[in-house]
Amino acid sequence: MLLRVRAAVAQLAAGLGAGPGGQPPAEPRGAGPGRGSPPPAAFSRPAFLQLTPEELRRADDHTGRAVQSPRDGRRRLPWRTGYAEVINAGKSQHNEDQACCEVVFVEQRPSPRGWLSSREGGGELDGGRKGFYFHYWALFDGHAGSGAAVMASERLHLHICEQLRDLVEILQDPSPPPICLPHDTRAGSADPNQVSSTEDHGEVPNDAVPRFHLEKAVSHESLVIGAIENAFKHMDDQIERERASQHLPGGCCALAAIYLMGKFYVANAGDSRAIIIRNGEIIPMSREFTPETERQRLQFLALLRPELLGKEFTHLEFPRRIQPKELGKKMLYRDQNMNGWAYKKIEEDDLKFPLIFGEGKKARMMATIGVTRGLGDHDLKVFSSNIHIKPFLSCFPEVRVYDLTQYEHCPDDVLVLGTDGLWDVTNDKEVAGVVMEVLMSYEPNDPCRYTMVAQELVVRSRGVLKERGWRLANDKLGSGDDISVFVIPLGGPGNYT
Amino acid sequence: MLLRVRAAVAQLAAGLGAGPGGQPPAEPRGAGPGRGSPPPAAFSRPAFLQLTPEELRRADDHTGRAVQSPRDGRRRLPWRTGYAEVINAGKSQHNEDQACCEVVFVEQRPSPRGWLSSREGGGELDGGRKGFYFHYWALFDGHAGSGAAVMASERLHLHICEQLRDLVEILQDPSPPPICLPHDTRAGSADPNQVSSTEDHGEVPNDAVPRFHLEKAVSHESLVIGAIENAFKHMDDQIERERASQHLPGGCCALAAIYLMGKFYVANAGDSRAIIIRNGEIIPMSREFTPETERQRLQFLALLRPELLGKEFTHLEFPRRIQPKELGKKMLYRDQNMNGWAYKKIEEDDLKFPLIFGEGKKARMMATIGVTRGLGDHDLKVFSSNIHIKPFLSCFPEVRVYDLTQYEHCPDDVLVLGTDGLWDVTNDKEVAGVVMEVLMSYEPNDPCRYTMVAQELVVRSRGVLKERGWRLANDKLGSGDDISVFVIPLGGPGNYT
Repeated sequence: MLLRVRAAVAQLAAGLGAGPGGQPPAEPRGAGPGRGSPPPAAFSRPAFLQLTPEELRRADDHTGRAVQSPRDGRRRLPWRTGYAEVINAGKSQHNEDQACCEVVFVEQRPSPRGWLSSREGGGELDGGRKGFYFHYWALFDGHAGSGAAVMASERLHLHICEQLRDLVEILQDPSPPPICLPHDTRAGSADPNQVSSTEDHGEVPNDAVPRFHLEKAVSHESLVIGAIENAFKHMDDQIERERASQHLPGGCCALAAIYLMGKFYVANAGDSRAIIIRNGEIIPMSREFTPETERQRLQFLALLRPELLGKEFTHLEFPRRIQPKELGKKMLYRDQNMNGWAYKKIEEDDLKFPLIFGEGKKARMMATIGVTRGLGDHDLKVFSSNIHIKPFLSCFPEVRVYDLTQYEHCPDDVLVLGTDGLWDVTNDKEVAGVVMEVLMSYEPNDPCRYTMVAQELVVRSRGVLKERGWRLANDKLGSGDDISVFVIPLGGPGNYT
Repeated sequence: MLLRVRAAVAQLAAGLGAGPGGQPPAEPRGAGPGRGSPPPAAFSRPAFLQLTPEELRRADDHTGRAVQSPRDGRRRLPWRTGYAEVINAGKSQHNEDQACCEVVFVEQRPSPRGWLSSREGGGELDGGRKGFYFHYWALFDGHAGSGAAVMASERLHLHICEQLRDLVEILQDPSPPPICLPHDTRAGSADPNQVSSTEDHGEVPNDAVPRFHLEKAVSHESLVIGAIENAFKHMDDQIERERASQHLPGGCCALAAIYLMGKFYVANAGDSRAIIIRNGEIIPMSREFTPETERQRLQFLALLRPELLGKEFTHLEFPRRIQPKELGKKMLYRDQNMNGWAYKKIEEDDLKFPLIFGEGKKARMMATIGVTRGLGDHDLKVFSSNIHIKPFLSCFPEVRVYDLTQYEHCPDDVLVLGTDGLWDVTNDKEVAGVVMEVLMSYEPNDPCRYTMVAQELVVRSRGVLKERGWRLANDKLGSGDDISVFVIPLGGPGNYT
């Protein structure tokens, strides 16, 4: 466990804000110890690759497109996780993907009077500090610069850790989470009318408060999901605050897998993808957020807030641009509450550009961006206009949960995370085929087998350089995009380190 | 095919409005021929039951709760469809469910210069009139009065027919639907600047207009979906227009199954449910729309339009009401972009009542209503306030499609439609079990077998009257709600009439 980030986050904590209702975010600070602080928005590759300057130059070469993986003899990723990446074929100066893999210790936040402070034991680790570990793998696919992806790869796990710090005791207590906690004195929020109330003295656990008849049960799992969701929001806020000083143009998609207390939480905001391959079966662990998949949310917002369209766009969807001479004809359209199509008479307002336009990889929102969730993009505007894109983007991930304890996993069961560079040219089934094929040719105990899978996935999506560019085995065009892949063995916990 | 509604809709058409961009809706008219016009909001049962006055009285008896089905020797429903219903145990004066089953002829709208008018044949039926039939089954579960459900049961299929009339040629033409149609002269919308344009003379089919490079393909199926979606909207508009004159208080959930050109389109707005049971396998054909399932849509609207909350509600969700003395404590909450839960410090604004509150069948929006899609409810307000509920409700259905031609169906494969009275006490698996059990005890050719299934489903959900009320076989409480069920054989088309 060489990559552990322990109490590093304690120093960072004060700079992150305390969540809704808490203190306003303080000024940003640098990353905690244990990680180098790269110069603002400098090109870099994931720290765990430990590239030498020469290797870094090679990784940055668009013509060779050498596949990068953790080298033999250097640090190994937790659970023998496989990783591989390759730079794009020239579409941007550097590889705008980033990756992170960490084991993070979540230390309970010191509290002057914790609601559970009188309880015994439960999570006392490492010399008396209460807390737990989570494992973390994440891919960030940047656009319009690598700054946002670099910063997110260095900080998102710290934000997740920060969100979990208040939950250390609650998550380790098998009883249902308390609906309400006592006054938070750190937040300085005491109500002067309530100081004499008995349940405010902190020693009395939540159970002493009379329960209401109508009270919704909330699971531990949904607290972790909420923590991850809010961590993405805090990460996005941090990029917003620091974008000027740290030079963070652009944005990034974010896909993170968190292993915590027997469960995988896969959080996705963007168009990367995660799938589990278990006994040959494919289990989707994410879905993509694009102008097409989020059409109704975007149209709904545009309908309610037409001023966001700057008189340039219509919230209706049309199958193509309308020409002025078509006024009065009937054209197919879709409104926000429709999944089907119908004809409408073309009016003056319909001549504006449609909010959502194009299909598949070419679908764009406001003719500008092809992903609708992610981090950053605070300054993104429609070309040659003052229309902001950010109000339509969401930084919130969808989190899917996979309970590792519900199934006996074999060494060939894996979770694959990949940026769209992988999935643009390879579907789930093909990926599963490669995974099974490669794993079969290595011993179950071979520490390199998951790296070999990751490399093979990257090579097969990149293709081979021929006269007519990068070509796949079937002679179709390979992916010219940055490609990054994690292959995480599900038999990991307890088996490998 | 005794229940056909043929050109009846022609007379109704002028009163329905011509869809987006068309004429504003004209004044309402009565229903077309072929159906009796009941007195406004009078209690009635579905016409196809052909109840005598004495039978009607019996159907309206809360103590006996006699199950009603089409009688032997009277009209049979298309495809030998089974139907059964029972009144509630006293929660409302009358049975507020309604049902409709029709075979509807969609006659092409006469056009002075149709875009396809020069083409031959294709759908010329019944003495030269161009058109096609669709089969239609629908359940309407009324609340706060039966008026909306009664009107919807009499008109929704006519609105669907009306929406399809412009599509008769397009749906019968195997080539992709045209993106754009020529000027619609009926709508009186000619642009004086465009009258000399060549493609405006109607004789030139759409293909003559140069196609754009970026043009989205739209399927025939999605045109039917769009037609059904807009028909629900027009139905809702009609209820709004006529609610004063026709005395239509309240609203209704609507679940409709349309069989058209080899496919079932199942449209659901509310908490009724449709499942297909095929070779013992259950295929869900709808999902329920409730404050819980639509939480994020409702919270999003409330966040963007806080004035709709009338200062009485907060868009945040809490697991229970907050007491004023809890100000400053931390409580679990969920915002519109979250699926998980997190703690926030309770502020003054959080003391307002949550927009969504309660769980399961007790979940309510604005403490008022437990369904979030349906028809009607235009006058519904939060109790003792001036806060309208309707802006949060959607009249748009979700439409799912099942292609009947993709599978060889046996006589035991059925589509079951049921109001929530059925599903509150019986799950999908139990329903599938009853279906298979009953069908097994009747010959495949027995014309009554689907009616027997419907009756058995209703009886098993209603239970038997004991000293402690209506009880199921397992002694749990039976459904005290109105219960209505259609059982539609999927081997229907071409096999039965």
